[in-house]
Order: sequence, then structure tokens, then C-alpha cells
Amino acid sequence: MLKGHQSWTFENKPVIVSSATVVGPFEGDGPLGDDFDIIHGDSRLGQDSWEKAERTLMEEASSLAIENAKLTKDQVQFYVGGDLMNQIISSSFAARTLAIPYLGVFGACSTSMESLAIAAMLVNSGSAKYALAGTCSHNATVEKQFRYPTEYGSQKPPTAQYTVTGSGAAVVAEKGIGPVITSATIGRVIDMGISDPFNMGAAMAPAAVDTIQAHFRDLEIEPSYYDLIVTGDLSKVGYQIALDLFEKHKFPIKQTKYNDCGMMIYDYDRQMVQAGGSGCGCSAVVTYGHLLNRMRKGELRRILVVATGALLSPLSYQQGESIPCIAHAVSIEAGEVSV
Amino acid sequence: MLKGHQSWTFENKPVIVSSATVVGPFEGDGPLGDDFDIIHGDSRLGQDSWEKAERTLMEEASSLAIENAKLTKDQVQFYVGGDLMNQIISSSFAARTLAIPYLGVFGACSTSMESLAIAAMLVNSGSAKYALAGTCSHNATVEKQFRYPTEYGSQKPPTAQYTVTGSGAAVVAEKGIGPVITSATIGRVIDMGISDPFNMGAAMAPAAVDTIQAHFRDLEIEPSYYDLIVTGDLSKVGYQIALDLFEKHKFPIKQTKYNDCGMMIYDYDRQMVQAGGSGCGCSAVVTYGHLLNRMRKGELRRILVVATGALLSPLSYQQGESIPCIAHAVSIEAGEVSV
Repeated sequence: MLKGHQSWTFENKPVIVSSATVVGPFEGDGPLGDDFDIIHGDSRLGQDSWEKAERTLMEEASSLAIENAKLTKDQVQFYVGGDLMNQIISSSFAARTLAIPYLGVFGACSTSMESLAIAAMLVNSGSAKYALAGTCSHNATVEKQFRYPTEYGSQKPPTAQYTVTGSGAAVVAEKGIGPVITSATIGRVIDMGISDPFNMGAAMAPAAVDTIQAHFRDLEIEPSYYDLIVTGDLSKVGYQIALDLFEKHKFPIKQTKYNDCGMMIYDYDRQMVQAGGSGCGCSAVVTYGHLLNRMRKGELRRILVVATGALLSPLSYQQGESIPCIAHAVSIEAGEVSV
Repeated sequence: MLKGHQSWTFENKPVIVSSATVVGPFEGDGPLGDDFDIIHGDSRLGQDSWEKAERTLMEEASSLAIENAKLTKDQVQFYVGGDLMNQIISSSFAARTLAIPYLGVFGACSTSMESLAIAAMLVNSGSAKYALAGTCSHNATVEKQFRYPTEYGSQKPPTAQYTVTGSGAAVVAEKGIGPVITSATIGRVIDMGISDPFNMGAAMAPAAVDTIQAHFRDLEIEPSYYDLIVTGDLSKVGYQIALDLFEKHKFPIKQTKYNDCGMMIYDYDRQMVQAGGSGCGCSAVVTYGHLLNRMRKGELRRILVVATGALLSPLSYQQGESIPCIAHAVSIEAGEVSV
């Protein structure tokens, strides 16, 4: 139900009964490699286009999440999915393969938590017994669409981020064993006038801070409630700006640990990723892989995942527009520990 | 709550307390002209790009719907919106202007009913007091993105459809005066192998039929329950295919009136629109303008709006893919009649 101005509390505590993550070789080689279910050795996945490779990531993660939940596709009522591609083709074509009634969503890289929040809402309200939330991105498709084909080898400034090749999906259920979703905060669009598509972290940081502050205001809790707050993919530059904004707003972020998925997925010393990771797949695989694994092991009890999205298009950029950004937050708490 | 396999019933009967429609000159000149709130004389709306014109349609329809509901923007908790543009920039930039917490959705031309179904779900479950649903399309932006810039004057086959320049928005509320939303059916992706982007109606018809049949199966009612069933934008070609499919499946569509928004918005004799209208704005302005007006006047008591979407992208088409399609249905019934 509505709590405060823009948050939902889920009194029936929808359960994440399973999740699955599928990544490319570069992500598999990173510090979270052990947390991913499938690591492809070939980032093309044997497909004849990068777009088909991205779709395959989504299909594999979705199918595996359903399988991990010991369900069949026809037991899942709704698939809530989206991605960064024009007309979210990766998700829509995956939905064709899955043949599950489909709600396409778009929040750029915030799609991971937008889809999870909606899936939780559906289950909490009795509108679904099982809902699948998923998203994906692929380094080669995203770089090609938003900037330059990777084959060009164009140089990038240190503020640029490296799009994650990966897909994460989760099955949310009325009951079962696993972490539970307790609340969500839906963000509003924040645009501080930044127009450099090679500095998304800086553009998105104010949206992340706005949603985090709204979450604690709406829920009437303090940051210390959580063991960990993670933003989606602000990476180094955006993370520092978020810290500065918290300090300026006198927001007590220091009560808890605060990290960023874009800073967690790669090894800055070994992997050349400029400011860090990004893409819909970034927060999805870090959350559905690494963080849920830590919750299942009992290392984390309560986390707030704040996925951030830059809602530009190449065309809006070419027309001189600045970058509107958004962030959606989902609170996940340990349920019954699975053994 | 979940009803059958893929439908929701809204036991708290969320009310469409207001709606607003904004269209271009060509739509204003059509047979439904009197039903639209704002008819622009210049399809550029005084903006310096077609994309900015489209966004302005969305901003105007949203603001007017909120004003018509006698609300201010900060009383509306969530804006659920989407459109056909890459990265749904029209809706996202409108969300920046509105500053209302935003759920971006994408279902191509089915977005009108996807957004309305989600808005109804939010209000029905107590997750919002007021939710705004809206979508838009513009002939010049869509033709440019999916086919050719209109300035080229390229010829079109008779199966092609004419993208509507228009935006429709509705405010859904917990209580109030107006038509109520009683149920929704979320479609699955259907792809019968059609790959011609100049024949969307044929591609989408099977998805419309699939969702309509699912709706009646899930709700355990017959077509005679409704005064009118309208599909989104199948237009002449797709409408005939839908009729053929109903006959083949022995589905009693003849129990009620069945029409299509794409066949209603233009005058085939006077306006050169090939098979008829299309675009996210088509079902939005026909529903939020014409059909709701007829309900408010008491001419219609129960309608089922089945918005259809073709989930292709120019890139998926260029890569030789067929067109995955979807349809979402929303049932609207007369509430207290507004005077």
C-alpha cells in the first residue's frame, strides 16, 4: 500500500523464491564471478548479431530463474521486463520465447528495480501468484546504439562507464523460501542539466539521492535500518557526487554501508572500465547474483537497492537536450534462510 | 486480484475521474474531432523538432487531465506512461516536466491500455490515491523512426497505417465520479511470422484475438456482457483478419458490437490514411476522448478496449526478424454519470 508520497510497503512480504544471472566473459572474470550462474566464454553467445546475443542472455536468465524456482513457464502469470535497446526488443523477443503474459517496462538502467517493484506489487496485491522480473544489457549492443560500435575502438574519457554484458531475473512469489521484498520507492525524473553521455554517473547521482531521501522520509526509518545501501551504476564519479550531495543535505548515509553496483562488478586494477560498470544488467546481476547470495548465506539481513537510469536517447542528445535521470529503490530483507 | 490465468479484477472499482486528449490538425478534421479537448492547427506545435512536438502533446494532455480532475500535480502519486520513441523519450521528458514519480512502460501501441491497467492496479491495491496514465504518438516522429521521414513523400501500400498525432491521458482515482475500471487482461506475445512493417494490422490481429479470448475465458463472461469491444489499431486489414480468426475459433464476437480505433479516427473517404490509423495515440485519444464521452453521456455502459502493439524495432526488422505482437485489454464500465 501507499506509504508517504511515492513509496509502497508490501505487507504480504512477497518472496524472491529464485533468481538467476547470466554474464559475459569479462564479467565472469571480475571479482563477483563466483556469484553468477552462467558465464559465457564468448560474448557473442554463438549468435549472428549482438542483439540476438543480448536476447539470449535474457532468455537464459529467465528460464533458469523459473527452473530454479521448480516451476514451469505456465505457472508464472506475468513477466515484467525491459532493457536499453530501442523498443526494448531484447525483453519483448524473450517474452515471445517465454510465452508468459508480458508487461514491458523502461527505466533505462533503473529497469532492474522498476520491474522488481512492479512484480512485488502484483504478488503483494494478489494479482499474481508468481511474477518474473528481469532485465539485461550487452556491452556491444549498448555501445553501438548510444555511442560507437566497439569495433571502432574509439577512446573514452575516464568518466565513461563500461556497459555490463549480463542478464538477471528473479521469480517473486506469494510464499516460499528466500529473501522478501518489504517496500519500494518509485523515483521522479531529476535533470540537473548534464548533457555528456560519457558522464552518466554525474547525471544520475542527483536522482539516486532524491529517491534515497524520499525512501527514508516515506518509510520513516533511518539509513541504519539497512546493512547495505547500493546504488545501481553511478560508478566512481557518480558515487562521489552522491556522497557529496548526502553531506550537503546532511543526510546520515554514514549510519550504514553504501556501495555502488557499478563499482563492485569489475576489478579496477585488472580491468579497463574507466569509471566502472553500467547498463541494465549491472544492478541486476550484482543484486540477483552477489547480493542475494550474501543474503541467503546470512551475511546481509536488510538491503536497499537503488537502481539508477539515464533516460536519454541518442536523438534527444543530438537535439541538445540534457539527460533526465531516475532511480527506483527496492528494499529486500532476509526471509527464511534457504539451506 | 488475479482472475484466471492472466487477468486482474479490480474489486475496489478505480474511477477514471478525468481524461484529456490533444491531437493534430488531421485528427481534429476527422469524424471524432468534436471529442478532443485540444486540436492543434500546426502539427509542429511551434516546437523546433517533431520530437519536441510529440512531447508537448503528452505534457498538454497530462496537465489538462490533472486540471480536469481538479487536482494539482503533487496530489498525483504516479505517472505511468510510454510511447513509441526510442527510449520512450516523449514520456520521460514529460515526466521531467510533471515531476511526478514515474513508471515508464513500453508496449508499442498497446501502451495506452498497459499504462491504464497498471494505473488501475496501483489504485485498486491502495498503492496510489491518484495515478495518471498516458501515452502519445506523432505522425512525423514515428514515420521517421520506423519507416521514412514524411518529407520524402515515399509511397505506401494500401495495408500501411497512418500514425496518429495525438496524446491521451487519464487520472485514475480511488473514488470520485466517472467510468470505473473493472478488469484487465495482460497479453502474451504472439508472432505469426509476419515481417512486413507496412502491414502491422495483419501482424497484430492474432495477438488481439488471443487476448480477447483470454479475457472472456478468465472472466467467465460472454461478449454480450459488453456494449462494445474495440481493438487498438488493427485498421481495415487487421480488423478483417481478427473477424476471420473469431469465426475460425467459433468465438461469438457477434454477440456485441466490435470496432477498431484505427478505423474510427479518420474518414476513409476524405482522408488518405491507407488501412487506417495507428500509433500509441490512436487508441488513447479514441478511448479517452470519444468512448469516455459516450460513456459519460450514457450511450455506452460497458466497453472492452483492447490496445494492440507491434513490438518490432527498425533494427529487429533489418536483422530479418518477424514482428512480435501483443494486446492488453481493459474493461471500463459506467460509474456514476457526471452531469
